[in-house]
Amino acid sequence: MQDISQDPTAQLIADLKHAKLLDSVMILLDWDQQVNLPEGSTDWRAKQMEAMAPICHTAATLPRIGQNLDVLDKKGDAATVEEKVLRSRVRRDYDRQVKLPEAFVKEKALLDSQAFHAWTKARQTKNFTRFEPFLEKQLQMVKQRAKLLGATDAYDEALDTHDPGMTAKRVEALFNDLKRELIPLAQKILSSPIKAKQGLIRGIPVPLQMEFLKEVTSALGFDYSHGRVDVSTHPFSTGNRFDSRITTRFEEENPIASLFSSIHETGHSLYEQGLPEEWIGTPLGEAVGMGIHESQSRLWENQVARSRAFWKYWEPRIRAKFSPRLDGVSSEELYLAINGVSQTLIRCDSDEVTYNLHVVLRFEIERRLFSGELKVKDIPAAWSKLSGELLGRIPANDAEGCLQDIHWSNGAFGYFPSYCIGNMIASQLWYAAHKALPGLEEDFAKGEYGRLLGWLRTNIHAKGRRLDTEDLVREVTGEGISPKYLIKYLGERYLPLYVK
Amino acid sequence: MQDISQDPTAQLIADLKHAKLLDSVMILLDWDQQVNLPEGSTDWRAKQMEAMAPICHTAATLPRIGQNLDVLDKKGDAATVEEKVLRSRVRRDYDRQVKLPEAFVKEKALLDSQAFHAWTKARQTKNFTRFEPFLEKQLQMVKQRAKLLGATDAYDEALDTHDPGMTAKRVEALFNDLKRELIPLAQKILSSPIKAKQGLIRGIPVPLQMEFLKEVTSALGFDYSHGRVDVSTHPFSTGNRFDSRITTRFEEENPIASLFSSIHETGHSLYEQGLPEEWIGTPLGEAVGMGIHESQSRLWENQVARSRAFWKYWEPRIRAKFSPRLDGVSSEELYLAINGVSQTLIRCDSDEVTYNLHVVLRFEIERRLFSGELKVKDIPAAWSKLSGELLGRIPANDAEGCLQDIHWSNGAFGYFPSYCIGNMIASQLWYAAHKALPGLEEDFAKGEYGRLLGWLRTNIHAKGRRLDTEDLVREVTGEGISPKYLIKYLGERYLPLYVK
Repeated sequence: MQDISQDPTAQLIADLKHAKLLDSVMILLDWDQQVNLPEGSTDWRAKQMEAMAPICHTAATLPRIGQNLDVLDKKGDAATVEEKVLRSRVRRDYDRQVKLPEAFVKEKALLDSQAFHAWTKARQTKNFTRFEPFLEKQLQMVKQRAKLLGATDAYDEALDTHDPGMTAKRVEALFNDLKRELIPLAQKILSSPIKAKQGLIRGIPVPLQMEFLKEVTSALGFDYSHGRVDVSTHPFSTGNRFDSRITTRFEEENPIASLFSSIHETGHSLYEQGLPEEWIGTPLGEAVGMGIHESQSRLWENQVARSRAFWKYWEPRIRAKFSPRLDGVSSEELYLAINGVSQTLIRCDSDEVTYNLHVVLRFEIERRLFSGELKVKDIPAAWSKLSGELLGRIPANDAEGCLQDIHWSNGAFGYFPSYCIGNMIASQLWYAAHKALPGLEEDFAKGEYGRLLGWLRTNIHAKGRRLDTEDLVREVTGEGISPKYLIKYLGERYLPLYVK
Repeated sequence: MQDISQDPTAQLIADLKHAKLLDSVMILLDWDQQVNLPEGSTDWRAKQMEAMAPICHTAATLPRIGQNLDVLDKKGDAATVEEKVLRSRVRRDYDRQVKLPEAFVKEKALLDSQAFHAWTKARQTKNFTRFEPFLEKQLQMVKQRAKLLGATDAYDEALDTHDPGMTAKRVEALFNDLKRELIPLAQKILSSPIKAKQGLIRGIPVPLQMEFLKEVTSALGFDYSHGRVDVSTHPFSTGNRFDSRITTRFEEENPIASLFSSIHETGHSLYEQGLPEEWIGTPLGEAVGMGIHESQSRLWENQVARSRAFWKYWEPRIRAKFSPRLDGVSSEELYLAINGVSQTLIRCDSDEVTYNLHVVLRFEIERRLFSGELKVKDIPAAWSKLSGELLGRIPANDAEGCLQDIHWSNGAFGYFPSYCIGNMIASQLWYAAHKALPGLEEDFAKGEYGRLLGWLRTNIHAKGRRLDTEDLVREVTGEGISPKYLIKYLGERYLPLYVK
């Protein structure tokens, strides 16, 4: 084995990779917790995660990392491009990690696991009060974390955690711009007499759905030799190119939902699988943040997989696979079902037009929670009110309302805006990709995605975390994040369908 | 939280539990590796395990454990019964762990994972040479381990690792006594004109098999609220009462095999699930060793689940579940199929009569490997020769021969004898349980196992690792391990079936 102790950069990279390797064990514990864990084993898992957390933290705050960063700093301009990226990014991560005491890290890991199980039970029983104390505690810990990190604003800090460089002010401006055009557009579509038929495809056995979704996700490029798909309450994507795992949930009466949720998670995994192999475990082989991540998942799920060209290829295949269930369904009915727009209560089941309003709702709640305007116990009421205003429907219970999402159970405040930001970026990339790759839709009609994936690999994936979210968008598309492309895309796709 | 830093016993227990908690993470990595891991992800998993190994080792060799053991030693007779068990057992484990350098522990973990994957591939391709260098390395490492531990004989050390107190000399004496009576008994049964019908139950879909085996294993007492069953190449049981996982493998053409393999693994889990909860993570809440472990798995698999009384209850249920596949099969044909005796090449598929000869074969190979009489590269030839002599059949390829078992891939030399010792102990316990619990078979005929499980809980499980294998057998049955009960049991069960 090569001796790296005399090479600060090599030693730094090795230490970073080691820390991420240990993180990946924690990530597997979490994956297993969501996919496999017996219902009685939750306390045990919480203890395992509590024990692992300080081990991961110790590895990430190894004093040698700090020392080697100092050496890299002293190199000044003589540093290589990669060294420059490493030192700026790692410095940021390291300085933050170092500010978090071990006791805090342990407590947070224990809480994350406990709160996940409390959320699962509360959701099953449609009872927010069971989850409330855990959510309260998560909110306090996220605020405490911001304090420990010396952040001036806890919600800005929470946003920045998920999307480097993002602030509440910037999100608010983007969302206001978006709402101005989106609300009338959604209204126009929702008030159309043309409606997607409900329950068009019913009674498809789960094994058949699984076969079809594997066929589709493989065609998109998901690497099943280094990955797998399973079932969990809340679909997610985890791991890296060496072991990449997605989950979905099945409904026999709604096979389209699990198909699209797995395409969404495939989009996440394609990003992870496209990060440069030799740099995995360092910022050069790491995703930028959740905004870019969601842009990848949403691009594949929506712009690609809801397009006519995409279904030109897959329609005969889904008809054959689910035969004879689709025999009485016309092509236009099928395509409309795939692009159904309606007032829904559940974000994950919502169409891509109204989806963004679900995000706006959550952003509003989070903003008020952090400002102190809203108390945790009052979330259900606030949710109902906003739901009525933004989505035109009021949840009948907490499971349809504030308990529907997993995110807050692990304290992931500030995550939701990334979905909408991701939608904006996805549209922006969609137009940029079309400009760069003429005839892209013809590829899809042939079931080919290599050119688009290649373009994303080069322009997004290969760059790792060299740039912050908005800087990367600017580099690739020539301008900062803008809602106008999302509005343009939604108009182009949905108006011809619904407003004739 | 209670401050335990001033209470050496409490601190010792906490440190031991913490170390085992980290071990349990490693165990999950291994479970996942065998159940879920994508085929391309093996190197990544090996790296994860290599990173975790020194962390587990550091926790197990914490100097404070040694210091608190010294304090307990000084307590002399004033120590409680539990403290006395702890200090003797932990001292043994701790002193051994301390002798193993971190580099060795890391190398071993990496090798275990790599060798597991090499074995998997070698077995698939029926090619021993692909596995040979890994096996060679495992042998060297086990020998090196013995040296580091200061053992006088490496194979004795390997046996003792799996079965505290066991030596090659003792195993050889037991096996010689056994063979003297078993070989003629097996001959008598094998030469009977009465034969179990091959392929009596065919074409049972896997989901149906899974349902039935869950029904059976639940009835036996497996706690599915803290456990699960999955599929792996080599069935195994892992975890503890907080999260207990068994695996099986299915063949549509042979549903009996997966049923019995899962009953076997259930036996292991019932033991783990019966260890005293408050002591889990310490020797007081730990299994004695593999001999006792296998006695539990084999007792449930064979003595219980192959009995007429057991099938009195389950026969109508399996007929209903697999209907109409068993319609043309008589009760006697079914029972004979369950107790079929034949010359087989695969240990896991073998009946309980010839099973022990499979173990003798492996013991012979291991003994010669450790003495230097046999080279790793010559294992296939030696296997073939012994297989002809002991089992009356010669494998057509390495997958049917020396590659069939997983054990050597992780260096578990000295494990196989535990299976046969377990069979002996199972029979000994079987007769002891019958003496203590009159009318036991009537319980089984009603599908009730609570009295037997209760007796095992009290006499075996509750005792944790207070005693060595043979001492525990003596305490429960009044005498040391003896092959005569196994012979008696096999004669009573099989002679009436085959020699009329």
